[in-house]
Amino acid sequence: MKAELIAVGSELLRFGRRDSNGDWLTERLQRLGVEVTRRSLVGDDVASIASAVRAAQSTADLVVLTGGLGPTEDDRTREAIALALGRPLERDEEYATRLRGLFEARGRTFKPEQARQADRPRGSDWLDNPIGTAPGILCRVDGSLVVALPGVPPEMRRIFEEGLVPLLSGRVGQGLARRSLKIGGRFEASVDEQIRDLYGLDGIEATILTGREGIELHLLATGATTGEARARLDHLDHRVGERLGVDVFARDDETLAQVVGRLLIAKGATMATAESCTGGMLGSLITETPGSSGWFRGGLIVYGDDLKCSLAGVDPEILASEGAVSEVVARALAAGARERCRSDFGIGITGLAGPGGGTPDKPVGLVHVALAGEDRTDHWRIRQIGDRHLVRRRTVVFALDRLRRRLLESRGPEGSE
Amino acid sequence: MKAELIAVGSELLRFGRRDSNGDWLTERLQRLGVEVTRRSLVGDDVASIASAVRAAQSTADLVVLTGGLGPTEDDRTREAIALALGRPLERDEEYATRLRGLFEARGRTFKPEQARQADRPRGSDWLDNPIGTAPGILCRVDGSLVVALPGVPPEMRRIFEEGLVPLLSGRVGQGLARRSLKIGGRFEASVDEQIRDLYGLDGIEATILTGREGIELHLLATGATTGEARARLDHLDHRVGERLGVDVFARDDETLAQVVGRLLIAKGATMATAESCTGGMLGSLITETPGSSGWFRGGLIVYGDDLKCSLAGVDPEILASEGAVSEVVARALAAGARERCRSDFGIGITGLAGPGGGTPDKPVGLVHVALAGEDRTDHWRIRQIGDRHLVRRRTVVFALDRLRRRLLESRGPEGSE
Repeated sequence: MKAELIAVGSELLRFGRRDSNGDWLTERLQRLGVEVTRRSLVGDDVASIASAVRAAQSTADLVVLTGGLGPTEDDRTREAIALALGRPLERDEEYATRLRGLFEARGRTFKPEQARQADRPRGSDWLDNPIGTAPGILCRVDGSLVVALPGVPPEMRRIFEEGLVPLLSGRVGQGLARRSLKIGGRFEASVDEQIRDLYGLDGIEATILTGREGIELHLLATGATTGEARARLDHLDHRVGERLGVDVFARDDETLAQVVGRLLIAKGATMATAESCTGGMLGSLITETPGSSGWFRGGLIVYGDDLKCSLAGVDPEILASEGAVSEVVARALAAGARERCRSDFGIGITGLAGPGGGTPDKPVGLVHVALAGEDRTDHWRIRQIGDRHLVRRRTVVFALDRLRRRLLESRGPEGSE
Repeated sequence: MKAELIAVGSELLRFGRRDSNGDWLTERLQRLGVEVTRRSLVGDDVASIASAVRAAQSTADLVVLTGGLGPTEDDRTREAIALALGRPLERDEEYATRLRGLFEARGRTFKPEQARQADRPRGSDWLDNPIGTAPGILCRVDGSLVVALPGVPPEMRRIFEEGLVPLLSGRVGQGLARRSLKIGGRFEASVDEQIRDLYGLDGIEATILTGREGIELHLLATGATTGEARARLDHLDHRVGERLGVDVFARDDETLAQVVGRLLIAKGATMATAESCTGGMLGSLITETPGSSGWFRGGLIVYGDDLKCSLAGVDPEILASEGAVSEVVARALAAGARERCRSDFGIGITGLAGPGGGTPDKPVGLVHVALAGEDRTDHWRIRQIGDRHLVRRRTVVFALDRLRRRLLESRGPEGSE
């Protein structure tokens, strides 16, 4: 079964507002086994909407429009569907009366234009909207379905789940399953090279994207049923795991900080941070995780160089001789975080995020990261590529991934010192 | 002049990858005076692409496709355009020879399928690609233009700027100008009510969105020329400013932290933070700004309650009696940040970001923010709505906006104490 999505609303086109309804519908339809083959954004005019509906309806089994069902003059989806399907638009007087009653019961004035929400193309059905005034519209056309849903996300989702899912479940005829694997500490090209031959596996589509926390391998499997699709995914997931080992750190929505938290809790251990160039970003990333107070103690943001000494205990003479961006300062920050915040592990970060401040010796993108534990302190000197935001972002992810790997160790040190 | 954008690539549909080329092209075309009236995402199959091209070409003056120009079997944009326009696909042997030369000069093998990048529909022109192997394709069809650009963003942008902009500038026939105003410390509905009557101004489209740093008023103006459109924007901008006053804190890409930095630099003053529930997010937001080391000293992430005392100097007895989420602790954190980091202003934040940990007295979303300066400490007790991420995000924006307002003061205190 193939679906096309049409998002209606000039603000989507003019102001770059993200079509989040379409994102949600795509994922939800995939889980039902329906493939989305085209998505369009169109403005509020009847001709554009109607032309999109005609184009979609000629190739898809299911067309879902979102938006343009409100009471204002800009809401033209009803007319456009009627035009596209060559059916007259008719007012459902029974629904109009009910709508008027709803308004009056709440003490709100029922303006004449509100009644437009009771219009629908001849021969179509309502999809009940239990939390708003605009119901969805369902038109059956030569075996395919054209559906209009309101643009307000909670209303759209509710009508989809309650009105549409029951209709679709009998029609789909295939299963789809989707999963993403998150991969840390690797470059896209090298991951691609290592597992490329696995992509060709029967019934699986794969793509590698760069996500917020590293490389993401996105997989979409098809099968006669959802169970079969999922079994294919499990098989590929297993084979990728054999090749990439601990580089695969999470699946789907799990974050790196959640994984680190899980590992720390298992050891009954805690962590703390001392950040210079990342300025609190590592602490912020960690504390996005609910329950992080169970394993994250706190941190020091040591942006000014004198604070590296007064807050984190870096020796001022060493700082003066080696410079703030140096291995010895990173190590002292990690130890200072651990000691001042009374934690089991301490992460120290110092570097040049740019755009200014670089020198031939210490270029923009140079970062020193140190990880202090009870037994030893590891250190990494890295050279990040990218703008200020990327340098910072990649650095905090790198640091957290190193802690993850250290927590997985059972065979002794893998780092330095 | 009207344009339609078609993004080609199954990964855009299947895995929710954002069509960032389309976002970029929309904004860039608007600046040239070209309105984007439809955007589509289509998969890699010839029929879908061709159907999208035909639909677009029947209504738009300019159709821009991105993606699908590479050398692999999945790259079908060339064939699809030829099919849609009813023209044969022909190989440009001269370009194929040049391409082979390019490969050989770099010591890379020229595989036969690479030559596909030298195919184009009969009667079309190349748009030179100075940084990649796939040139753009330009087809003139009955006065409209159908253009294909590679999907690699830097190549797409370069060809657009160098090959397409010179062609468009003579054809546009109208001017567009776009601007966004960022509004702090206000709710969407109240801003809407206060300025709604201004939206109707001739030749201006307006929409209110919720952005990362508060409410954003997005404006798009049309005029006979770009200058006229911009003059309309300036006029509306001025009138909005009269009504909203200091609530408007920035325009377009300027961030709240940049504005605060500017104001601090003007006073020769510095700031520091002590964060509990936001865990470093405020420090991170501030240090995203290049040059923030000139006015941001550093901060304390006091997640564990004992660290509120040992790092920021909160009295343990008061903390025990009042609780960590209290006015007195927020004030002590602000003062502690200021003192320990030796800054002119200190911000203290303590609250319950959720989802767990709420009580009837201190519900999830309750946050205390304090701002300490030389002369006084202000305090706010706020109740944030939303999930953990939103509570944290809105809190750091709120705190920074309060500092901005304090720096704008010239008529004495506006806060409390």
